[in-house]
Amino acid sequence: MKGNVIVGQSGGPTAVINSSLAGVYRTAMDRGAKKVYGMRFGIQGLLEELYIDLSDHIKNELDIEILKRTPSAFLGTCRYKLPAIHENQEIYVKLFEILNKLDIECFIYIGGNDSMDTIKKLSDYAILTGQTQKFVGVPKTIDNDLALTDHTPGYGSAAKYIATSTKEVIRDGIGFSFNKQQVIIIEIMGRNAGWLTGASALAKGEDCDGPDLIYLPEVPFDTEAFLSRTRNLLEKKNTVVVAISEGIRFQDGTYVSEASGNADYVDAFGHKQLTGSATYLANVVSRELGCKTRAVEFSTLQRSASHLASRVDINEAFMVGGAAVKAADEGDSGKMVVIDRVSDDPYQCATGIYDVHKIANGEKLVPRNWITEDGTYVTEDFIDYVKPLIQGDYPSVMVNGIPRHLYMKE
Amino acid sequence: MKGNVIVGQSGGPTAVINSSLAGVYRTAMDRGAKKVYGMRFGIQGLLEELYIDLSDHIKNELDIEILKRTPSAFLGTCRYKLPAIHENQEIYVKLFEILNKLDIECFIYIGGNDSMDTIKKLSDYAILTGQTQKFVGVPKTIDNDLALTDHTPGYGSAAKYIATSTKEVIRDGIGFSFNKQQVIIIEIMGRNAGWLTGASALAKGEDCDGPDLIYLPEVPFDTEAFLSRTRNLLEKKNTVVVAISEGIRFQDGTYVSEASGNADYVDAFGHKQLTGSATYLANVVSRELGCKTRAVEFSTLQRSASHLASRVDINEAFMVGGAAVKAADEGDSGKMVVIDRVSDDPYQCATGIYDVHKIANGEKLVPRNWITEDGTYVTEDFIDYVKPLIQGDYPSVMVNGIPRHLYMKE
Repeated sequence: MKGNVIVGQSGGPTAVINSSLAGVYRTAMDRGAKKVYGMRFGIQGLLEELYIDLSDHIKNELDIEILKRTPSAFLGTCRYKLPAIHENQEIYVKLFEILNKLDIECFIYIGGNDSMDTIKKLSDYAILTGQTQKFVGVPKTIDNDLALTDHTPGYGSAAKYIATSTKEVIRDGIGFSFNKQQVIIIEIMGRNAGWLTGASALAKGEDCDGPDLIYLPEVPFDTEAFLSRTRNLLEKKNTVVVAISEGIRFQDGTYVSEASGNADYVDAFGHKQLTGSATYLANVVSRELGCKTRAVEFSTLQRSASHLASRVDINEAFMVGGAAVKAADEGDSGKMVVIDRVSDDPYQCATGIYDVHKIANGEKLVPRNWITEDGTYVTEDFIDYVKPLIQGDYPSVMVNGIPRHLYMKE
Repeated sequence: MKGNVIVGQSGGPTAVINSSLAGVYRTAMDRGAKKVYGMRFGIQGLLEELYIDLSDHIKNELDIEILKRTPSAFLGTCRYKLPAIHENQEIYVKLFEILNKLDIECFIYIGGNDSMDTIKKLSDYAILTGQTQKFVGVPKTIDNDLALTDHTPGYGSAAKYIATSTKEVIRDGIGFSFNKQQVIIIEIMGRNAGWLTGASALAKGEDCDGPDLIYLPEVPFDTEAFLSRTRNLLEKKNTVVVAISEGIRFQDGTYVSEASGNADYVDAFGHKQLTGSATYLANVVSRELGCKTRAVEFSTLQRSASHLASRVDINEAFMVGGAAVKAADEGDSGKMVVIDRVSDDPYQCATGIYDVHKIANGEKLVPRNWITEDGTYVTEDFIDYVKPLIQGDYPSVMVNGIPRHLYMKE
């Protein structure tokens, strides 16, 4: 590699997005990059010429290990969508001026669907204007909704957190199950795809019954059917645990969270902020079935709990970061690294590379036949798919009793 | 020991209440108990003759280790307050019939303030009626509000979870801090005592600024002052993180959670269920300051996250369980085991024993001089007190990627 590398992070963070950053840095240095720059706050920060030299922050091998265990976007993230090239060329001119000034050869962007759109537009613009920079995307999202990759880094750790926390919430609940009925509703992230919510099924095992009902956004939510099932369950057991996706919708397409009367907050990508579905349904159960209820939201913890990251996930995140640099250095552009599952048992994966034009903005949902016919649980196929992704631990480096993170001194 | 031991768990569970149960079992067996019974669902289950022989469930040393890592009350818990002896003697007659039938010599009850009231009444009744059973309490509560003991088992692990999760939430928040202001409000358990909420300050360190504001229930909450401080902070930084206790009250004594319009749910001990303060304040901030907000509730996870238990806490919980059996076997009754801090640095603790008449129902609050004068943070004295309690890990036994628990097969 003759020039420099720049790397950015975009969209909602994960527990392992910094492991990908570490992988980018390591491979870029190994391949002889003179400088590895980090965009502050993704492309949005870069437009204001906010970037750092990563060598100023990653001083040694220990820092790389700490970075791999640091949640959220070390570089800062953004939710920023580039305009179409014909709509606003100026922004592209400006960005490429910055890239040329920094002698960037490889541009690596770690993100989800919206971020791959950035890779697509930048590589298109480079080709249109005859510039030589290579643009490669690194998949990242807890939502696991990116097409063409077997799964996305970040998903396995979120799934491990959700499985573990669901199990702990169930244990907490059944301890109180004497002569008292209660329904606990756990709200899990996932706007359109139920990958995260389905992972709550992993709580089930020899020592735990798992949730009783699981509702994914892929299947319309029917309040009457839900109440009827819950009522039936309460005839057999005193503690009923229900896992729901924040994105569940009624048959008419409106979000359950809208019924809760929450103000509609819309983010920069035009996505509605969804929250409050569990509280809403807990109130419905309390009113209709007359039992004690509790709503639990895993909130941002499910995407930031590095202390419970999956070893498989951390290692794969590191691997895809490195693979992206290798691909760009070897001339790929407008591509995203993907994870191909080579074997289910024993679990083996390898990286591949795909044209980002085929990936951007296509959401991968849970296949309907991985959800039970009645739409209240996931199937064994779902569990077989996700189980390998939560395996192994990556113990935090504990300092003063809590996990150490790599910190950017301003 | 000639007779048998019975042990129960009561009140809200903790991440280490089963480590105390394991300690009771181990010491009872070591001291020659013929049988160690476990009450199902505390005294309330015992009144219906629900109990188990613990040897049927703890088969070997590995089971003891798994039990120490199992959250929530393995035996089941209850929120049940015995009537005064003169109000209802029948219930005491019935309980002692059961104890005599089971040849109980030592009655160990693991619980908080309300549970120590049970120990007091039962030991009083035994003395009044000339019976020989010994009744000893084992302290347990995440709230750390028991008098006379330096701290309570369960608090250290909850504090470790809160410190770690607060740090992860802060990291998640600052990743988004470009050109956008946001206020994140974290709601932490604690009705009257701010020990848990104060522990969020432990997130602060070389690699994290910690929360910006901490509001404990010991100091009246002033919405205007809170808004003014938040406004000032937003002039200096884009992400402001506020930790509040669920039990914060306005100057007039009403709970902030009441202002949220939540229905007043009252539990069996007459305590109001508090929840929704963070959401309420997030809405106030959003309305008054016009920035993005997020409310995060740590919910039951803070008392059940055994996967992040403190080693100091697990070991102390085990130790006080054993000390209670030893005390009862040596003739103590109407007593609670306490933890005495022998030394701050290096941290050393030993068990002591106190008359439960001095303990029951007296809540230990955070001393006013451990809260800053303006009531928006805790002092170094507070931090020095709690820091030793979150030290060390007790790694979960992971099976299929998630922590294994000891499970009672029905």
